Amino acid sequence: MKSTSPKVTIEVVARQAGVSKGLVSFALNNRPGVSPETRVRILQVAKDLGWKPSLRARSLSTQRSYALGLVIARNPDVLASDPFFPSFIAGVESILAPEGRALVLSVVPDEETELRTYRSLVADGRVDGVFVTDLRLNDARIPLLAELGLPAVTLGRPDGPSPFPAVTVDDTPGVMASVAHLATLGHRRIAHVAGSSTLLHGLRRREAFTAALREAGLPEGQTVETDFSVAAGSDATRRLLTQDRPPTAIVYANDPMAIAGLGMAHELGVRVPDELSITGYDDIDFCRYVYPPLTTVSAAPMVWGRSAASTLLALMESGSADDVDLPAARLVVRGSTAPPSGK
Amino acid sequence: MKSTSPKVTIEVVARQAGVSKGLVSFALNNRPGVSPETRVRILQVAKDLGWKPSLRARSLSTQRSYALGLVIARNPDVLASDPFFPSFIAGVESILAPEGRALVLSVVPDEETELRTYRSLVADGRVDGVFVTDLRLNDARIPLLAELGLPAVTLGRPDGPSPFPAVTVDDTPGVMASVAHLATLGHRRIAHVAGSSTLLHGLRRREAFTAALREAGLPEGQTVETDFSVAAGSDATRRLLTQDRPPTAIVYANDPMAIAGLGMAHELGVRVPDELSITGYDDIDFCRYVYPPLTTVSAAPMVWGRSAASTLLALMESGSADDVDLPAARLVVRGSTAPPSGK
Repeated sequence: MKSTSPKVTIEVVARQAGVSKGLVSFALNNRPGVSPETRVRILQVAKDLGWKPSLRARSLSTQRSYALGLVIARNPDVLASDPFFPSFIAGVESILAPEGRALVLSVVPDEETELRTYRSLVADGRVDGVFVTDLRLNDARIPLLAELGLPAVTLGRPDGPSPFPAVTVDDTPGVMASVAHLATLGHRRIAHVAGSSTLLHGLRRREAFTAALREAGLPEGQTVETDFSVAAGSDATRRLLTQDRPPTAIVYANDPMAIAGLGMAHELGVRVPDELSITGYDDIDFCRYVYPPLTTVSAAPMVWGRSAASTLLALMESGSADDVDLPAARLVVRGSTAPPSGK
Repeated sequence: MKSTSPKVTIEVVARQAGVSKGLVSFALNNRPGVSPETRVRILQVAKDLGWKPSLRARSLSTQRSYALGLVIARNPDVLASDPFFPSFIAGVESILAPEGRALVLSVVPDEETELRTYRSLVADGRVDGVFVTDLRLNDARIPLLAELGLPAVTLGRPDGPSPFPAVTVDDTPGVMASVAHLATLGHRRIAHVAGSSTLLHGLRRREAFTAALREAGLPEGQTVETDFSVAAGSDATRRLLTQDRPPTAIVYANDPMAIAGLGMAHELGVRVPDELSITGYDDIDFCRYVYPPLTTVSAAPMVWGRSAASTLLALMESGSADDVDLPAARLVVRGSTAPPSGK
């Protein structure tokens, strides 16, 4: 359904969407007079049929900036301690540099500033396309970017309709494999230090954790929600380990929190992996060099960056790009997991 | 000497530099016909006298991009594991965002591509100014940027003449304080895991290490040069600790290498801090959360980013900006240092 077909016309899109040809034309040419909801629906139908707004025609008629944008709405501290973004950016740059394209980066404090930033990137003609990361529930960026007519690639699939190609690394199998690995080792009290549940990937990892416990026939596990920061990962670990019946294993939603958890366990005199097993997520460089080396889920952020950049360039070049499903994140077993001590 | 004086004329600059008024005018207005060396010398004299090329006039006469550039020539892996840049960038963005300016980021594999990138940033009118990080010996970027007439701010002072304001965090006192702290604890065999000596800050930290040993009346210490990566930090630690007479303390040129060193010590069964003391550099977030928490030198990269951005904006606005000396990086003592075990 996703391949471009020369036979798909505006008439076909209009019939399928149940609207007039005029409305389709307005939506596809990004003219005013179409509600954001209708616009998204029309773009979605057009995409499903293999038709897309001719972004190429649009960019030829306007001035191209030869730059792509990445707007990150994160607490600067979280950004600074999470190597996901530098790795992702390094992957993006490895594709953009040889093409003579630049990356325009904005780090903003909140969602409101984020939406304003997209508007001004377009108004100033600063970028030809954007990467949309950290997808949220009912993400307001999708209809906004559709309204602005700005080509975009989403990291992962939004929960609602989207006219944009998605480049996805499925994180569910990796988290489920982590839990299955721990269950096989004999753990029965497994806890989860989750990320923010307003972020789709935080939510999805949490759901995968719950589903995996159920699948393994284990009782429901404790979950502590955090903002993904090292500090929060450390605090959550202290809370979990100082209970009367602490878990024998903890599944963390990212590596920085798992590494902080390792430090907290050492501090509390809890031996890893003898008395506590720990798993992370992302497989950042540090994982191999902490002690014990961290069992984690490898999401290959640099590969993800490369693929997202190629997809966005293809979209801008041809007006159409398919979704890309990268290999699912996979479990990497290292020294931080072992059978429980039997206490 | 650095304050702007309205009395400094082209005549004064010419007299001081020992060249003709015409040559000064050519150099200050970025016209061809002046060798890069002479141009840099004239700009340096002008700067010392408190006079600068009117960058404001220049940017008013050309199209402004309202964007600033950061070109990073680093191995993507090193970039991904070193939280210095994300922290620095977060600081830069906190100043640029409210001003409606964007940051154009390029990550390039080598110095040649780096120089080409600056040329094309200027040719494409993509940025109004740039941040120059990771200064090298005889840095080719200084004369190039002077030739291109692109406003710039250097992080730290170059080893040669430069017409650009420098925003500096002196790293020497912090490294010397690390060694003094270890010497006071009673260590006599102190080693250094250094960064690349082609980078000024790698070289400077190494020189500070050597000077501090001398000052403490200690014998020369072993130094292992690395590329600043976690992997190299881990390898260097293994090499140091598996010798017949291993050091009782190691001073690392950055935190990621120190954290990798901590992991390697654990792996080799060397207890930190009982049998080995460890110090880092930068005070990244992880330092507080590993075990034992890392004694390190706090360089406040986010503050550095904010100050560099303010300075670059001031330079672009007024055509002149003073050097900024931020508080020197200072030692933060945590759990990874203690008296040697006496073996």
